Amino acid sequence: MLPLLLISIAIAPCSVLGLWPIPRNLQTGTTLVKLPSTFDIKVDVNNPPQDLLDAVGRTKSYLQTDKLQRLAVGRGANDSAALGTAPTLPSLCISLLNSAPPRPIAVEAVLPIGTRSEGYSLTVPSDGSSAVLTASSTLGLFRGLTTFGQLWYDNSGTTYTYQAPVKIVNDSPAFPYRGFMLDTARNFFPVSDIKRTLDAMSWVKLNTFHWHVVDSQSFPLDIPAFPELASKGAYSSSEIYSAANVKDIVSYAGARGIDVLMEIDTPGHTTAIAASHPEHIACNQASPWSSFANEPPAGQLRLASAATASFTAQLISSIAQTLPSTLFSTGGDELNINCYVRDPQTQADLSKSGRTLEQALNTFTQSTHKALTDLGKTPVVWEEMVLEHAVTLPQNTVVMVWISSQHAAAVTAKNFRIVHGPSDYFYLDCGTGESIGSDPFANSWCDPFKTWQKAYTFDPLANLSTAQQSLVLGGQQLLWTEQSSPENLDSIVWPRAATSAEVFWTGATLPDGTARNVDAALPRLHDIRYRMVRRGVRAIALQPHFCALRPGVCDLHA
Amino acid sequence: MLPLLLISIAIAPCSVLGLWPIPRNLQTGTTLVKLPSTFDIKVDVNNPPQDLLDAVGRTKSYLQTDKLQRLAVGRGANDSAALGTAPTLPSLCISLLNSAPPRPIAVEAVLPIGTRSEGYSLTVPSDGSSAVLTASSTLGLFRGLTTFGQLWYDNSGTTYTYQAPVKIVNDSPAFPYRGFMLDTARNFFPVSDIKRTLDAMSWVKLNTFHWHVVDSQSFPLDIPAFPELASKGAYSSSEIYSAANVKDIVSYAGARGIDVLMEIDTPGHTTAIAASHPEHIACNQASPWSSFANEPPAGQLRLASAATASFTAQLISSIAQTLPSTLFSTGGDELNINCYVRDPQTQADLSKSGRTLEQALNTFTQSTHKALTDLGKTPVVWEEMVLEHAVTLPQNTVVMVWISSQHAAAVTAKNFRIVHGPSDYFYLDCGTGESIGSDPFANSWCDPFKTWQKAYTFDPLANLSTAQQSLVLGGQQLLWTEQSSPENLDSIVWPRAATSAEVFWTGATLPDGTARNVDAALPRLHDIRYRMVRRGVRAIALQPHFCALRPGVCDLHA
Repeated sequence: MLPLLLISIAIAPCSVLGLWPIPRNLQTGTTLVKLPSTFDIKVDVNNPPQDLLDAVGRTKSYLQTDKLQRLAVGRGANDSAALGTAPTLPSLCISLLNSAPPRPIAVEAVLPIGTRSEGYSLTVPSDGSSAVLTASSTLGLFRGLTTFGQLWYDNSGTTYTYQAPVKIVNDSPAFPYRGFMLDTARNFFPVSDIKRTLDAMSWVKLNTFHWHVVDSQSFPLDIPAFPELASKGAYSSSEIYSAANVKDIVSYAGARGIDVLMEIDTPGHTTAIAASHPEHIACNQASPWSSFANEPPAGQLRLASAATASFTAQLISSIAQTLPSTLFSTGGDELNINCYVRDPQTQADLSKSGRTLEQALNTFTQSTHKALTDLGKTPVVWEEMVLEHAVTLPQNTVVMVWISSQHAAAVTAKNFRIVHGPSDYFYLDCGTGESIGSDPFANSWCDPFKTWQKAYTFDPLANLSTAQQSLVLGGQQLLWTEQSSPENLDSIVWPRAATSAEVFWTGATLPDGTARNVDAALPRLHDIRYRMVRRGVRAIALQPHFCALRPGVCDLHA
Repeated sequence: MLPLLLISIAIAPCSVLGLWPIPRNLQTGTTLVKLPSTFDIKVDVNNPPQDLLDAVGRTKSYLQTDKLQRLAVGRGANDSAALGTAPTLPSLCISLLNSAPPRPIAVEAVLPIGTRSEGYSLTVPSDGSSAVLTASSTLGLFRGLTTFGQLWYDNSGTTYTYQAPVKIVNDSPAFPYRGFMLDTARNFFPVSDIKRTLDAMSWVKLNTFHWHVVDSQSFPLDIPAFPELASKGAYSSSEIYSAANVKDIVSYAGARGIDVLMEIDTPGHTTAIAASHPEHIACNQASPWSSFANEPPAGQLRLASAATASFTAQLISSIAQTLPSTLFSTGGDELNINCYVRDPQTQADLSKSGRTLEQALNTFTQSTHKALTDLGKTPVVWEEMVLEHAVTLPQNTVVMVWISSQHAAAVTAKNFRIVHGPSDYFYLDCGTGESIGSDPFANSWCDPFKTWQKAYTFDPLANLSTAQQSLVLGGQQLLWTEQSSPENLDSIVWPRAATSAEVFWTGATLPDGTARNVDAALPRLHDIRYRMVRRGVRAIALQPHFCALRPGVCDLHA
């Protein structure tokens, strides 16, 4: 029967099912299959970890509470008749392959980048037998559960899928790093907002939360050895991530297959440290700020000071050792030279040691990175540390390319691994004005707005040699929060940030062999957006509902 | 003592108090005044209408629940010492002047445009005596209560203001029409979203809710004589504004000093009518849509058909007669000629009557406008009806200028009253992409994003002669909802839509005699934004919180 089945599969428009990111390998049929009230997810795993059981519980809950109707005229009402006699799916059986150890998802999620197993296989039959999900890791099972949870719709209380049988063999990500960055320093986000964001990330299989936790504007992080940084540098006592909050967030993320890559940006973007340690900050809130920083307030760590370098290394070590991730970012973007030129202490420090500023920066960076490597961690830096400064970096350093997508070639030419976060594709804050108060033009520096279509057409391998391509770990969309706050977190991020999730999971090719493209993506992006809304994430409309119900009808040339 | 008092007033920076829109006349001092637990608002009005009493109740509630801390470093903690001995304000006494009739606010709010009394005077002394609010109408008292409610901050449970005495004499709006338009057809908004929007509108003294209720994508309005329009043309049975919903919204708006100007857009933008009355719609969902409409789906009323004209007039009459407003919009934008050229029935109707399309449009418009004038109402139309078509309009017709701010001159040159809603300043949806699915560039037609600064610098009287200036009723910002939904309603509208509230209330000059400008506006706009958030409206951050706490410090040249 299998060959016949495959023929019917080839005819079915696989793009209609709302899977996001679409599996790299997918066969679907045309049969409706419904879930009986007795449907269960059976975990055939010895000593299953609690976070896997919790993920199963959440999946079962979504099956009951999503109540998403099909995005079609009539919202699937025409399915009612066929549903009466449709086959049922008694259960989903999940198991580990090859005697894989039943480690917690949270343990699998923080393995070194490139060594994680996220693949899975899933079959949902249409003959009344059970669905089967297998993987070589609990993390892979979690990814498969996520896919399974996107198959289901509601018809007057009946939960069903409409393109069974569904067969996914060895779906696994094209790139190991698929992230989202949130800046919690320019404006503060409560733990509940971060958790909701982690949930939404997990629904589209993003696996790294890049937490740009502190910056010049505020220091909302309680660092165990330096509590004064937050108590004096946070916006208020209620706008601090305590050690317990951090642990809670890391745990919540890990259980959802997400590694938390924290960044303590140095030596720039550190004004808030001056609230408790003015001795370490040059050009603290100097005026005019535009002579000393890319945005207010000015202030940078006195990188030529041995005391400041030591303080910074201790600070980083103190927080990094509390985190399970093997990655930690020391930042390194937008260093302002004039700030140091005008800082008498820095000039004295340089003069005393007979070093140039670049030499001092190198020493400083060696110090902060040693703090990380002593903990067995891999440093992450912004691209300037490679392209603009004469800094010696461990060759396994991960470099974030942000200024321009065109810079990926230069960084990989130096043989560093990269994460794509280009402002010309992935900056979610661009295009909605400028936060500089009295600018009458008030356009954002990275105009225009980065549409989902723009982000979706990003090519991670463009302009790179084969050798360079092997250095691409993946990428992420980023939210800098000059003009964002809890009030628009969901609406500015979702569903746009889902586009890079598919770019880096699915890769260049759709399962039917055609190139990934915006036309085919839109109906599925609608689907995951409406599903996110059902689950409590305020993802915004991409089109009038009229268009969402009629795939293709509102396209440019339709 | 008064002269001395006035001297201290002149020195105080009146822009710091978070009043929005800033009164046209304002004197402030430097004294802290707190509210005792026994503070009360005394209504010295005979037979006060219930909606005035309700407004008093809401104001008292805000005083307790806003709990907004001052936007200053320390959030007003330095006020603690002085508050201990600060004078208290025992009560606010409100009364009507000149034996004005105690009519409900909702009655005052729907008086003909230009005849409403919105002015008030308010004094908040610092000598322990009571505050006094007077007006010549309950609507004016409501505006004054709104101002009073913006004076108060929280300091560890103490509610206080910090620039008493406050004296406002005859604050009244520069322009009688100050609106906000919401499109509820492209995507649907539940009644609760509209009510929350009406609340936010009232907080900044906007007085007209332009309800673009139906359009080509859906018909969510239950019209008494034509229930089939919504039952077949709405997105779903749960996405319909019932007659009871409309009454509820109108009542809610009226009690908040807001007139509901409903629009049934004709003869274009009417595809959704075809779901129940295909006989009245030309080029219904014709393809390619771009040949028949500015956006999908195509479909326009058969304006040359006598039956369609009669149907449309009855439809408009049926709903308009349920509404208290004297204004009602018949739309008239973006008429597509090719739709009628290609419609055999329209061509036959024209041929039979020997009329041109423009002549038929004139007849059609006379018919729909007669339905309104028969009800004593004034028609409102989009600018094309004046600038692009040979239509005879009643001279009291109100014309909305939307295509360009440059068109105000041409419309007023024809001696029509105008409402400014220019897409180049006031379209809130611009600049965040395009809803046309497969457009790879996906920029919005009205790029770039209209920043609050751009909107705030709008000059309602630019390029107009004195005679033309007298025809300017006011203006509004507008939200077309191709890419908006309940998920981002607040965040895309607020606080941006507050900018035109000040443009049209305060006019060109601040109370200190200087020209209205973005530098002086920003601290107050922050203040109303943070207050909106406290009251449950998800208004977004305009800057990092760091900047909001330090007026001017993040300005371009600071």
